[in-house]
Amino acid sequence: MIRFYNARVLTMAKGTEIQQNAEVWTDGDKISFVGVPTRQQLDEAVFERQTDLKGDLIMPGLKNAHTHSAMTFLRSYADDLPLQDWLFKQVFPMEAKLNEDRIYHLTKLAILEYLTCGCTAAFDMYFFRDGYVRACVESGFRSVMCGSVSGEESRLCELEDEIKKYNSTGSGLISYMLGIHAEYTCSKGLIKGLGELARKYKAPTAMHNSETQKEVDECISRYGMTPTQLFESVGAFDFGGTTFHNVYLTLEDMDIFRRRKVVCVHCPASNLKLASGIAPVAEMEKMGIEIALGTDGPASNNALDMFREMYLMTTLQKVSCKDASACRPQTVLKAVTVGGARAMCLDECDIIAPGKQADLVVIDLNKPNMQPLNNIPANIVYSADKTNVRLTMCAGKVLYENGEFFVGDDVHRIYANANRIINEMKNEV
Amino acid sequence: MIRFYNARVLTMAKGTEIQQNAEVWTDGDKISFVGVPTRQQLDEAVFERQTDLKGDLIMPGLKNAHTHSAMTFLRSYADDLPLQDWLFKQVFPMEAKLNEDRIYHLTKLAILEYLTCGCTAAFDMYFFRDGYVRACVESGFRSVMCGSVSGEESRLCELEDEIKKYNSTGSGLISYMLGIHAEYTCSKGLIKGLGELARKYKAPTAMHNSETQKEVDECISRYGMTPTQLFESVGAFDFGGTTFHNVYLTLEDMDIFRRRKVVCVHCPASNLKLASGIAPVAEMEKMGIEIALGTDGPASNNALDMFREMYLMTTLQKVSCKDASACRPQTVLKAVTVGGARAMCLDECDIIAPGKQADLVVIDLNKPNMQPLNNIPANIVYSADKTNVRLTMCAGKVLYENGEFFVGDDVHRIYANANRIINEMKNEV
Repeated sequence: MIRFYNARVLTMAKGTEIQQNAEVWTDGDKISFVGVPTRQQLDEAVFERQTDLKGDLIMPGLKNAHTHSAMTFLRSYADDLPLQDWLFKQVFPMEAKLNEDRIYHLTKLAILEYLTCGCTAAFDMYFFRDGYVRACVESGFRSVMCGSVSGEESRLCELEDEIKKYNSTGSGLISYMLGIHAEYTCSKGLIKGLGELARKYKAPTAMHNSETQKEVDECISRYGMTPTQLFESVGAFDFGGTTFHNVYLTLEDMDIFRRRKVVCVHCPASNLKLASGIAPVAEMEKMGIEIALGTDGPASNNALDMFREMYLMTTLQKVSCKDASACRPQTVLKAVTVGGARAMCLDECDIIAPGKQADLVVIDLNKPNMQPLNNIPANIVYSADKTNVRLTMCAGKVLYENGEFFVGDDVHRIYANANRIINEMKNEV
Repeated sequence: MIRFYNARVLTMAKGTEIQQNAEVWTDGDKISFVGVPTRQQLDEAVFERQTDLKGDLIMPGLKNAHTHSAMTFLRSYADDLPLQDWLFKQVFPMEAKLNEDRIYHLTKLAILEYLTCGCTAAFDMYFFRDGYVRACVESGFRSVMCGSVSGEESRLCELEDEIKKYNSTGSGLISYMLGIHAEYTCSKGLIKGLGELARKYKAPTAMHNSETQKEVDECISRYGMTPTQLFESVGAFDFGGTTFHNVYLTLEDMDIFRRRKVVCVHCPASNLKLASGIAPVAEMEKMGIEIALGTDGPASNNALDMFREMYLMTTLQKVSCKDASACRPQTVLKAVTVGGARAMCLDECDIIAPGKQADLVVIDLNKPNMQPLNNIPANIVYSADKTNVRLTMCAGKVLYENGEFFVGDDVHRIYANANRIINEMKNEV
């Protein structure tokens, strides 16, 4: 067992209430104790490691609920372009050169970055899954993948292969959700087929949704309805789901999300950088829609930093609603922990409580940006950054601590591989 | 002398061109060499320290061109309020309890935070200057102060006292610029008097300007002109100046700034958090106005993090102009270095070149968020954060390196003092 003591604990089980002078114990991949132990409990416990946190804070690991991890190779490669040009002229041609081995190495780089921001799970939408899974399992990092097919109906069989294969890898770190890329890249047959699979497997589905006004307008001219309404009409949300971006929503769209308990993943940095817009998060919150946070891929962000996303989530709502009280820290902290877990169907990873998975982060409060301690939850959202991540634990294993990585590989080799791969790809025709 | 070798150098003398495999030497408080030395130069030099940067990048120290440093005590104290309520109901009553000793301790906390983000100079607008100056000089940190008086004309004499006193402290780290708080807190007599002092001392002036629509509307109804036009009409910009915020500007306002070579300090995080709005930075850039970046005080941000400001500067322009190509990285990097130096009249601190002040930062590229190295200037703006600050040097002295501070005081004592002070103030009636 591992023991963290002299801790503040933000369990996220009761809003943003913080337990003072508490302890968190982990046993294997699970949390085994939270609170103030009795003398007897302490005497009976056998610890392999005991760490005095000196007042630092333990909270649930941050969840990155929308990303394309291996896109690290395109970081700062094609900036300052709008979504459609960026995607069709720059991203798709380079992605055609990817292979499983490249995905493996590029994913390892992304995992390092996730760990530096206290992120313990990523909801990944990409391809060459075997390479991705190998990188996650070897690193000890948790991930849920979702389907990302586009084009014709014939690709539905890939989704059926994947949902079976990646929900039975034998690793507790890996799972899979049905999904397609987006309305604007998929045929009507593929979209209808997604609905049929949702009903066949009684499973939620995931997809990019209403990221730009152009996407919504074109969908309406094709089908007479918004992307959200189209997905609902084919039954894709009959067993819930998770949608990414959601920048342009109608009231009817939001009502579908509320009724179907669809989790809306907000990607504020990517939406700014591609000039897509600001999602109506405050309205979603009022409607009672579950919200999660994601970075999108590192090619359109360009970081994988959940602190940046938290800050943007609240402050963009304040300015777009012209209301400085919009989207308070508790809403943001819920989205980045519990909301993210709901988006990925990781109910065992949502809060700090006995029996839950030991996916947690230690926030260093002894840094200038966290002082004085007027209001710790507000400090986390409004002034914390990656320098405050003291330790990141995933499934009971410490993967990052005091700037060092414990992911079973050398970080400089990971950097060298990423540089080698992008340079090779630039020279391939 | 100090020698940094195996460095990449972003001098900011020629756009964002980077010198590879170069060296930077410092001698006392100045930069003495930049480039690739000859064998003879190396043989003749005597170094007290030589550091292999292993490819990491040296660039000019980041400049925080608008802040109220000692407001650290109000971090996370009064969030989620609009500017006018935040200022009049929360901030002003607490500020009335400040004194010189408190300012000294609270400033020390802010300086630590500046150093963690590679910031080497702050343009500070606050009061109890002697406490502030003592904290800066003891820490080795550079600061320019500007006048912050409000109310009646009678306070002009304070500005005259301050401009004489703080431009001759004997410390090369400290200087002072004339200034007032803002149009909405100053009488017409005080504003006119500022113009007279500008002409008397042939000096630039500084002030908050057009931060909210309310401020502009009320100024127009009082004087029949915008705040910018009012300041221009009294001669306040006859010798240039620096204005803070500039969220609501007319074309005529921008033309005044261009003609008068007034530097506009952009404070994107604070403008979002107080729901003030998004400044027209892309338009200012097109007009040829010099732009700088600032955090504003930690009570309205709530961090003092120039990486956050850089990211917001570019991405907010993209979304507000609906143009993903708006406000490119080179514009941002110029604002945070050269623009900041111009705002503070620190022409000797703008770029990395022999004879300039040795105010510099080493950016760690061997971190996952900076890999691969497709485009380093873009990486700095779009994906860097405070974990990439390896070293911060101010006037030739290393004040922060690998997470450790060298400011002549114990950091835990600084934190304890800040917490003691805010707790005392909460209990004082």
